[in-house]
Amino acid sequence: MTDQQARGIRDAARDGAAERGLAAGESGSRILGPDASVAAFPLGGIGTGNVSIGARGELRDWEISNHPDKGTWLPFTFFAVRAEPTGGDAVVRMLESRLQAPHEGDSGHHIGKVGGLPRLQSSRFRGEYPIATVDFDDDRLPVRVRLTAFTPLVPLDADDSGIPAAVFRYTITNPTDDAVRVNLAAAMSNPVAITGHNVFQFPEYAGMPTVEFRDDGRIRGLAFGTDLEPDDVRYGTATLTTTDEVTATPCWPVDFWQDGIQLFWDAFTATGRLEPSPVFSLDGGDVARLPKLRTGSISVENELGPGETRDIEFVLAWHTPNRPKAWNGMVGLPNTHADDIVQNQYATRYADAWAAACDVTTRLPELEAATRAFHDALYDSTLPMEVVDAVTSTLVAARSTTCFRIADGTGEGRFAAWEGSFDHAGSCEGTCTHVWNYAQTLAALFPSLERNARRNEFLNETLPDGRMRFRTNSVFDAEPLEFHPAVDGQMGTVVRLYREWRFSGDDDFLRELWPAAKRAVDFAFTAWDSNGDGVLDSQQHNTYDIEFYGENSLANSMFIAALAAAARMAEHLGDSEAAERYGCAADTASELVDRMLYNGEYYDQRLDDVDAHRYQYGTGCLCDQLLGQTLAHLVGLGHILPAGHVKSAVRSIHRHNFRRGFDDYASVQRTYALNDEAGLVLCTWPNGGRPRIPFVYSDEVWTGIEYQVSTNLIYEGFIDEGLEIVRATRARHDGIRRNPWNEAECGNHYARSMASWGVLLALTGAQWDAPAGRLSVAPVDAVFCDGDASIPFTTGTGWGVVELDDDGARLRVLGGHLTAHAVEVTHPRLGRLTASDVALTAADAIPLTITTTPLENSK
Amino acid sequence: MTDQQARGIRDAARDGAAERGLAAGESGSRILGPDASVAAFPLGGIGTGNVSIGARGELRDWEISNHPDKGTWLPFTFFAVRAEPTGGDAVVRMLESRLQAPHEGDSGHHIGKVGGLPRLQSSRFRGEYPIATVDFDDDRLPVRVRLTAFTPLVPLDADDSGIPAAVFRYTITNPTDDAVRVNLAAAMSNPVAITGHNVFQFPEYAGMPTVEFRDDGRIRGLAFGTDLEPDDVRYGTATLTTTDEVTATPCWPVDFWQDGIQLFWDAFTATGRLEPSPVFSLDGGDVARLPKLRTGSISVENELGPGETRDIEFVLAWHTPNRPKAWNGMVGLPNTHADDIVQNQYATRYADAWAAACDVTTRLPELEAATRAFHDALYDSTLPMEVVDAVTSTLVAARSTTCFRIADGTGEGRFAAWEGSFDHAGSCEGTCTHVWNYAQTLAALFPSLERNARRNEFLNETLPDGRMRFRTNSVFDAEPLEFHPAVDGQMGTVVRLYREWRFSGDDDFLRELWPAAKRAVDFAFTAWDSNGDGVLDSQQHNTYDIEFYGENSLANSMFIAALAAAARMAEHLGDSEAAERYGCAADTASELVDRMLYNGEYYDQRLDDVDAHRYQYGTGCLCDQLLGQTLAHLVGLGHILPAGHVKSAVRSIHRHNFRRGFDDYASVQRTYALNDEAGLVLCTWPNGGRPRIPFVYSDEVWTGIEYQVSTNLIYEGFIDEGLEIVRATRARHDGIRRNPWNEAECGNHYARSMASWGVLLALTGAQWDAPAGRLSVAPVDAVFCDGDASIPFTTGTGWGVVELDDDGARLRVLGGHLTAHAVEVTHPRLGRLTASDVALTAADAIPLTITTTPLENSK
Repeated sequence: MTDQQARGIRDAARDGAAERGLAAGESGSRILGPDASVAAFPLGGIGTGNVSIGARGELRDWEISNHPDKGTWLPFTFFAVRAEPTGGDAVVRMLESRLQAPHEGDSGHHIGKVGGLPRLQSSRFRGEYPIATVDFDDDRLPVRVRLTAFTPLVPLDADDSGIPAAVFRYTITNPTDDAVRVNLAAAMSNPVAITGHNVFQFPEYAGMPTVEFRDDGRIRGLAFGTDLEPDDVRYGTATLTTTDEVTATPCWPVDFWQDGIQLFWDAFTATGRLEPSPVFSLDGGDVARLPKLRTGSISVENELGPGETRDIEFVLAWHTPNRPKAWNGMVGLPNTHADDIVQNQYATRYADAWAAACDVTTRLPELEAATRAFHDALYDSTLPMEVVDAVTSTLVAARSTTCFRIADGTGEGRFAAWEGSFDHAGSCEGTCTHVWNYAQTLAALFPSLERNARRNEFLNETLPDGRMRFRTNSVFDAEPLEFHPAVDGQMGTVVRLYREWRFSGDDDFLRELWPAAKRAVDFAFTAWDSNGDGVLDSQQHNTYDIEFYGENSLANSMFIAALAAAARMAEHLGDSEAAERYGCAADTASELVDRMLYNGEYYDQRLDDVDAHRYQYGTGCLCDQLLGQTLAHLVGLGHILPAGHVKSAVRSIHRHNFRRGFDDYASVQRTYALNDEAGLVLCTWPNGGRPRIPFVYSDEVWTGIEYQVSTNLIYEGFIDEGLEIVRATRARHDGIRRNPWNEAECGNHYARSMASWGVLLALTGAQWDAPAGRLSVAPVDAVFCDGDASIPFTTGTGWGVVELDDDGARLRVLGGHLTAHAVEVTHPRLGRLTASDVALTAADAIPLTITTTPLENSK
Repeated sequence: MTDQQARGIRDAARDGAAERGLAAGESGSRILGPDASVAAFPLGGIGTGNVSIGARGELRDWEISNHPDKGTWLPFTFFAVRAEPTGGDAVVRMLESRLQAPHEGDSGHHIGKVGGLPRLQSSRFRGEYPIATVDFDDDRLPVRVRLTAFTPLVPLDADDSGIPAAVFRYTITNPTDDAVRVNLAAAMSNPVAITGHNVFQFPEYAGMPTVEFRDDGRIRGLAFGTDLEPDDVRYGTATLTTTDEVTATPCWPVDFWQDGIQLFWDAFTATGRLEPSPVFSLDGGDVARLPKLRTGSISVENELGPGETRDIEFVLAWHTPNRPKAWNGMVGLPNTHADDIVQNQYATRYADAWAAACDVTTRLPELEAATRAFHDALYDSTLPMEVVDAVTSTLVAARSTTCFRIADGTGEGRFAAWEGSFDHAGSCEGTCTHVWNYAQTLAALFPSLERNARRNEFLNETLPDGRMRFRTNSVFDAEPLEFHPAVDGQMGTVVRLYREWRFSGDDDFLRELWPAAKRAVDFAFTAWDSNGDGVLDSQQHNTYDIEFYGENSLANSMFIAALAAAARMAEHLGDSEAAERYGCAADTASELVDRMLYNGEYYDQRLDDVDAHRYQYGTGCLCDQLLGQTLAHLVGLGHILPAGHVKSAVRSIHRHNFRRGFDDYASVQRTYALNDEAGLVLCTWPNGGRPRIPFVYSDEVWTGIEYQVSTNLIYEGFIDEGLEIVRATRARHDGIRRNPWNEAECGNHYARSMASWGVLLALTGAQWDAPAGRLSVAPVDAVFCDGDASIPFTTGTGWGVVELDDDGARLRVLGGHLTAHAVEVTHPRLGRLTASDVALTAADAIPLTITTTPLENSK
């Protein structure tokens, strides 16, 4: 089969996905009109913060200053086009489609938004993270304009996926029979060291902002700075550059009124070219009283012949190196060193924004190829489009303000994260173990960051008695907060240690962390098993931010999974005593938990009086009752409770907790699904027994839980049910109701939403077992389109796609390298296909055909 | 003609208005669906602040604490219904229609908004200020529910129009054949002394908020307080009361989690009745760490027989008596006494919120009758509905956070106002003379407040040399800001002194202010007429916040109007020297201005080099070129420039400056009209000559200017053109684009928007000349429907309607009293109808027929 044929299959598969009833709002390819007013597609890398692009093609949500800041915008910052056909009149437009209602504002649309300048008639936004494209539409404009915007994303490379920059490529096509002179202008204000906004809604600055024009021979454009000291927490630089020749107004005239934008617009309208210095003699004035806002602009000129297409590319880069050396969060971790600073990891790589812009510009072909390969591996896959949509859209959380990397002198840095990002502050500090339990995306795409987190959790946060602090303050060398340990967080972190070791095959890593891991496991017996029967039953703090009492399915499914994982790790390290002990304990717990908590349909909580303590669930059908089982499936541990009961239980979760409408629902908790929306409720009481005051999130709908349940449903064979949940989740995020690229829980870009990658793993059956050197995939039928499938995979060192058709399977490494003793593909019709001792590199991404070895269909 | 016949005519007229092509969004009766997400109908009186009601029937925008605060909401504050048919299941709903997208929020819909509780399927909001009605629609609910909400408005009575309270009347109808038990509950949190919001978006409080249940035998309900001292600037009380019997939970259990709302909702759902104390044993805890939010709830029960309708009425009252004794604004007036407090005028009348609630409840029949009479005089009039809509909707500004009254020990208080209200702070302090120049509403409805402002301007703010400070700081006994005087503000204030004296007939008032007024007029000659030719030509600060230079139409039309008004006042006071001098000066200026500035089509600005100074208009067609003429018409001064030229000029403003779309418009200024909207641009340059940088608002669209131009167009006979502008203004405020009850300029509820009443005066030709004792009306044809007209009028002491038909005219006094030597009605077909020496009172509002005296048709 030729490459072209393969592409044809993928295209057909894609069309197939569309045929399978995915409406625009539900499909993986997010096509949005200008009315998708809450859509905001974040650009920016891991630990860099973001600038987002809205559905109209506008820049929004400037969050580049080491804290979340939804809704912020930068005055006088936009792109504009001027197109003048030979012998015709020039048409001048801002490169956004028209502003949509409401047009509220206590002074109308703000001057800085230049709402009165003409926009393009319409736009069509296609968001396929990490790549956004916007097709603009205006029958008055003599050229067609498409914007492509992205920040490089290279799987397995957290550094190249963490560049503080974004590419804006405007593709101009002249469909006419005449030449058209096209000028593209970019205007931008200084985004660095903004401290707030004055009563006129103009930014206020620490220090004095600056802007100048710079040209280093390769790139040229606007360079923004400040007179703050480099160790000031607000210090930073930013750039807007291009490789094209430009005319520029390096700094607009500064006055109380909007003279700068008037002169810019008039000049650009007249000729498309900008004057190097103000041509209008400005009055003097009290400079100290004038706004500090500093704005500059550049313009690129091209002559496009009939039918010609040309790209004009801008790179926006920023460099705000310093963070406070403290969470400054609201959970209560002491801010021991809040007056000191730490540096972002990217600052060890780039001296300033100009250096980042240079790097992106110089290496763009390579970086873009990797980014597109990753994009294509997902968007050209045969995976259900809602799943592609879910995994890519939630991957944003890893590159949002939720996550960051602190330089520590090692070159690796320290990975740290909030649970999520409130609109203007981080939400719940400390890389919370019980929330991050659910996330699978980083482990699959940037596993070094997860290993980094495990090192911190076991080496710095696990006490001599085995108690693990579930929120880290040691990433800032700061005093801990004394609080209950979290049973689910602590047990899950053991499973995740197993996951990270198994994915990396790094025995040194495991050996270093193992003593603490053992203490953490043993702690469960002493702290949470009051009667010594091997089932947890004491006061158990957990991810619902309350204490469960008595034997319950959440804690114990996690406990069993941790024991099973610990037994495997112990065995590998030759710690046979521990291996034996944990293995037996797992068996005992499994048997007892099944006996105590299985109610004939699902697993619940054993309590004599469900109201003796507030915030329990008792007889409820809890979405997370099998969280330990989901995690066990994901790391290849198989069933940890009787398979039949697991199957019944996970099915009952879908049956009882998935709602197809919320009109008659009554919840007094936070609201994530309502009216005609569908979603999975955290707990229901199909048999009665609802506590007077159940746990405080019981009636909520969390996307992270939806994905973990979907994952488990798919592992247990309930594919339709699993995908129905994913479709519901994504349908709620349609750009009109909610932002497609932001699944919020307690904060935007909530870490738990990255449970989505588990759905992909369940559908593809992909497992990478580095110690065994075995890559296996076993896609479910739903992944096939007309008999063919193309599915992505990652390992600790390389990634690519596996393609299956009626004749066999192929493995293509698209990035990194893959050395494996065995590759096993379970083909639903052909059985097991294997290859042995492969050693592949991405090189030029040539497809590799696996030797087909038809075996007995052991399925 | 019977009363019924008269009503029939009015109904027909109303239908006629509908037939004249006013779509729903354009009609005076604002009918809005739940999607009108930016609609907010303010309740509250003059100088009390507001709570608003949204299109879904929800409470929003709590601005009762002496400063603007758009977007604020109060957690757990709502009404709810439970309806249980005999033998059937109870249906329980919040009394709002469903939440509309977007559903963004960094933690979903906030707990305090209880977004997860079931709402009613739909709603239909009818906003006819000052009365709002909401019809709820839900096919599951066995009863029909209508909400009527208002704050009393009594024309000519600023006190009874300034009660800090609002009535919420739920009218329940049982359309079924079975009895239905209906419980109506109201829940509310303490709104007093909120200082901000914490990271969880819950309010933070100064002091400790309290809530208790109180019953004084007449009214009962929730009483909110604080432990702050009564002289604390944040001190206050609030109440939610009813006259019905209630069950209550005076204070919900307090905890970090939402146990209170859970217990409330469960109890209300179960029985509709509330428990006096928490029934669930709550754990102890660290009370100091717990939220200070205090919430209570009451429930009213009724049994409705088949077909029965019953009203359940709640009164919300508040009392936040103290304001800082300073503007604390951003224009720069010194905050000399910012640490002291002053009291709101209403605090001299009511000791606390409970007293206000008692007063409203006790006097409700009387207060509501007056409110409805005013409402009906407008909404049952034959005025074009867009004009009714405009005058009532902008009247909101007078009862918004823009205006306030300071207790001064006199019983009258000091009236003071911002230009408008930013979302969270006042905009531009000092009752700015050049902005308030345009407002006509207060002068017609609450003339005592305008007289109060004139006293302050002339007695406290006019210096010995005649320079008037155009922003008052003396209302706070504070130091002035030294700044240019404003030519338009100063001249306009002279015209407004004439207006207030003429409307009141209060010679003592005139006599007291006249010396300062003379100085203010004389100042123009010395300060602004550099060459002594009698035309103003120096540096002239004005309402565009910049300086005009040279002879210009804005300043000089105001100058001539002021001279004409001054001559009349001088004459009345027997100051014949001044009368002669001002009269001659007016004639001279009129002749010279016409010669210098009339360009054959309109009046412009004479400048050799329009770019010698920034911010001029030169040859431009300025909307305000005849502002002085508009004001002159409104106060009965007639033409102050040649009538033919005025006619041409005002028509040219409409021709050049009124745009029916903004798609191809390019403005870098603030944006109040865009895309497919229509609106009147402040200035255009039809003959070229646009300055390089024209005055800083030249390309904007201000509703206050639209109304003043519309007023002048109608006075000059261009009725269609005038009404077209009003329709455009109001169409932009449709609840989806912008709030119908908020016309913003530099701030919400902008004072200039109250120019709208001028349109009504122009259409009706109403003039009240108190010194002469003459009330005259001369409605234009457009006011008639099928030969009949009903138009409102006000005088200094009484108000009512004049009804005209083919047989004659009637005058009905609806409030206050009217003593007049002559009443003259110019009937378009019957000519002049008069009555002499009438003395009428509202009494029971009996219609009075004027003796028809057919005179020669002198028109």
